[in-house]
Amino acid sequence: MIRLGCGMKGFIVGLVTAISEPSSTERASIDDLVKLVSADMARVNDTIISRTGSDVTMIPEVANHLISSGGKRLRPMLTLATAALSHYQGQGHIKLAASVEFMHTATLLHDDVVDMSEMRRGKKAARMLWGNEASVLVGDFLLGQAFKMMVEVGSLPCLDILSSAAAVIAEGEVMQLAAAKNTSTSEDDYLSVISAKTAALFGAACEVGPVLAKRGEHEIAACREYGVNLGIAFQLIDDALDYGGSSTNLGKNVGDDFREGKITLPIVLAVQRGSESERAFWRTTLEEGHIQEGDLEKAFELLRRHHALVDTIKRARHYGEKACAALDCFSPSEWTNALKHVVTFCIERAH
Amino acid sequence: MIRLGCGMKGFIVGLVTAISEPSSTERASIDDLVKLVSADMARVNDTIISRTGSDVTMIPEVANHLISSGGKRLRPMLTLATAALSHYQGQGHIKLAASVEFMHTATLLHDDVVDMSEMRRGKKAARMLWGNEASVLVGDFLLGQAFKMMVEVGSLPCLDILSSAAAVIAEGEVMQLAAAKNTSTSEDDYLSVISAKTAALFGAACEVGPVLAKRGEHEIAACREYGVNLGIAFQLIDDALDYGGSSTNLGKNVGDDFREGKITLPIVLAVQRGSESERAFWRTTLEEGHIQEGDLEKAFELLRRHHALVDTIKRARHYGEKACAALDCFSPSEWTNALKHVVTFCIERAH
Repeated sequence: MIRLGCGMKGFIVGLVTAISEPSSTERASIDDLVKLVSADMARVNDTIISRTGSDVTMIPEVANHLISSGGKRLRPMLTLATAALSHYQGQGHIKLAASVEFMHTATLLHDDVVDMSEMRRGKKAARMLWGNEASVLVGDFLLGQAFKMMVEVGSLPCLDILSSAAAVIAEGEVMQLAAAKNTSTSEDDYLSVISAKTAALFGAACEVGPVLAKRGEHEIAACREYGVNLGIAFQLIDDALDYGGSSTNLGKNVGDDFREGKITLPIVLAVQRGSESERAFWRTTLEEGHIQEGDLEKAFELLRRHHALVDTIKRARHYGEKACAALDCFSPSEWTNALKHVVTFCIERAH
Repeated sequence: MIRLGCGMKGFIVGLVTAISEPSSTERASIDDLVKLVSADMARVNDTIISRTGSDVTMIPEVANHLISSGGKRLRPMLTLATAALSHYQGQGHIKLAASVEFMHTATLLHDDVVDMSEMRRGKKAARMLWGNEASVLVGDFLLGQAFKMMVEVGSLPCLDILSSAAAVIAEGEVMQLAAAKNTSTSEDDYLSVISAKTAALFGAACEVGPVLAKRGEHEIAACREYGVNLGIAFQLIDDALDYGGSSTNLGKNVGDDFREGKITLPIVLAVQRGSESERAFWRTTLEEGHIQEGDLEKAFELLRRHHALVDTIKRARHYGEKACAALDCFSPSEWTNALKHVVTFCIERAH
C-alpha cells in the first residue's frame, strides 16, 4: 500500500487554496445546507431505512452497510434544497430525494463490482463481505425501490427526468469501461464520461425540485444547470484527489485510479503534454498494468511537472462558477447561498 | 461435459407425456400466439432494436448478443396478447412489451454474473465475451431504458406494476442467493423464490394489458393470475429440464444447476424423501461443492428413485391448470385458446 507523506498532501492543499482563494466568510462547508434541510432530511433518512427493509435479511444488511457508511447524502439534499428554493409545498420531494440516494447507492454497489474495489468510504466494500452477487442484486433491488417511490409520487415529468438519468448513468459507465486503460482518451471523451456517469444524477436531483413545484422552464433549466455543473466539478476534484488526498480523508487509498488503470483528467492532461518516453510510461503502467515499485511516485512527478492536477482543479473551478451563475435567476436567499457554499465545499475538499 | 444418453431423454419425454396427456389437437405450441401477435411483435422488435442503440458501441453489441440469441420473447408476447384480449385500442402495449423484454434481458445479464455462467441460450454468455463489468452495466442500461419507455407510455398504474415487479424480482434473486447451497430449503421457500424471481415478471407482463385497456379489477386479476401461475409452471419445468433435457434443446448443459449447487424443487423433494446417507450425498455435492466422477449420475438415480422429476412436473401441471382456469372469465376466443396453448407448450417443453 502506497501512502503519501505530508509533503504531497501539503502541496495539494496549497495548490487548491491558491486557485480557489476563498474568503473566510465563504469557507467551504455544506453546513448551511445541512441545517436548512435537516427536518426534511430526517424524513428522507426514515424513508431510506424503511425502504431497504425486506424479509430477505441480506438486503437490509448489504444496503445499510453502504447507506450507513457516512456518505454525505449530498444528492438527496440537493433535491430537498431545489424544492424549497422553488417554494414547493407538497410531500413528493421526500420520496424523490430517497430515490435519488437509492439510485446513487445502486451505482456504487455495481461500480465496486465493475472496478473490483476492495474499499468504499473507508470500509470494506460490500462485495468483499457478501460477494459480487449480492452487490449486483441488492443494487438491482434498490433501483427497483427507487422507481417504486418515484411512481408513488406520481409526477410523470419527474419520472421522465430520473429514468432518463438512470439510462444515461449506465451509458456513461459503459463509456468509461470502453475507454478504460486507453491513454489516447481525449479531454472531450473524458468530459462525456463524467457528464453521463456523475453529472446526470446531480442534474436530475436538482431538476426534480422545481419540476415538482411546477416552476417555469427557465427556473427548471437553471436548477439542472446548477446540478450538472456541480456534478462535473465534483467529479474532477474527486479525480484530482485520487492523486492527492490522504487515505483517511478519502476512505480509499491514494493512487487507486492509477493501480486500476483509470484514465481521468489528470492523466489525460499529463499524457497530452508529455514526451514520447512519458507516454510509453503511461501505456506500460495504465494500459498494460505493469506497475513497479516507484511508478506511483513517478506518476505524481509527471502530473506535477505538467500541472495536471492544478489544471484539473482549475477546470473544476470553471464548472463551479457556471453552477453558481446558474442560480442567479433566483433572488438571493439563504437557499441560494447554501447552494453556492456547496460548490465551494466540493472544490475545496482537498483541505 | 456430461451429456445424457437417449435413454434418459426418452425417459423424461415419456414421463412428461404420461402426465400431460395432450390430445393431438392441443399439441404444445406457441405458434397460435406467435401468429396472432405477429404484426405487433414486429413493432416490438423494431422498438427493441432502436432502444438498444447508443453511441457507446459496446451497449448494442452486448445487448444484441443476448437479445438476438433466439429467445422466444414469450413475455412481451403475453403483454401483447392480454392487451388484445382486453380489446385495447391504443399504442402503449408496444413499448410496455419492449420494456418487459428489457427487464428480462437485464435480469439474464445480471444472473449470468451472479451464477458465473459460461453459456446462455447455446451461445457464450455475454460476460465471457465482454466481461462481468459489461454485463452488469449493460443490464443497468437496459433497465433504465425499460423505465424510460414505461414513462413514455405514461400509465402510472402500469408503472406501478412494472416497478414493483422489478423490486420483487431482485428480492427473489437475493432470496435465492441466500438459500443457495442450503439443502434444508423447504418446498415453500423454493416457491417463494420462483414466485418472486420468475412469476412476478410473467404476472406483470400479463397484468399491464388489461390495465392499459382500463378493464375492471376482475379481468385484471384474472390476467395477473394467468401470468403468475404460468410463470411458476414455466420455472418448475425449467428446473426439471436441467436434469432432463438435452444440451442442444436447452442451450446449456444438463446438470448445470447440480454443478452450481442450486437448490431447485427436484432437489428439495429428493432431499426430503431421501435417507440420511442420501442427504449426506446432497450436502457433500451441493453445499460443499465436492463433486466427483459419477455424482451427477447418482443424482439422477436419486431423483428417479424418489419421483422428484415426476412430481416437479406434476406440480407444474397444477399451476398450469390454475393459469388456464384464470382465463375462464373471458369469453372463449382465439386469444384465450392461444394463451392456453402457451401453458401446454411450457409444460411440454421437455419434448
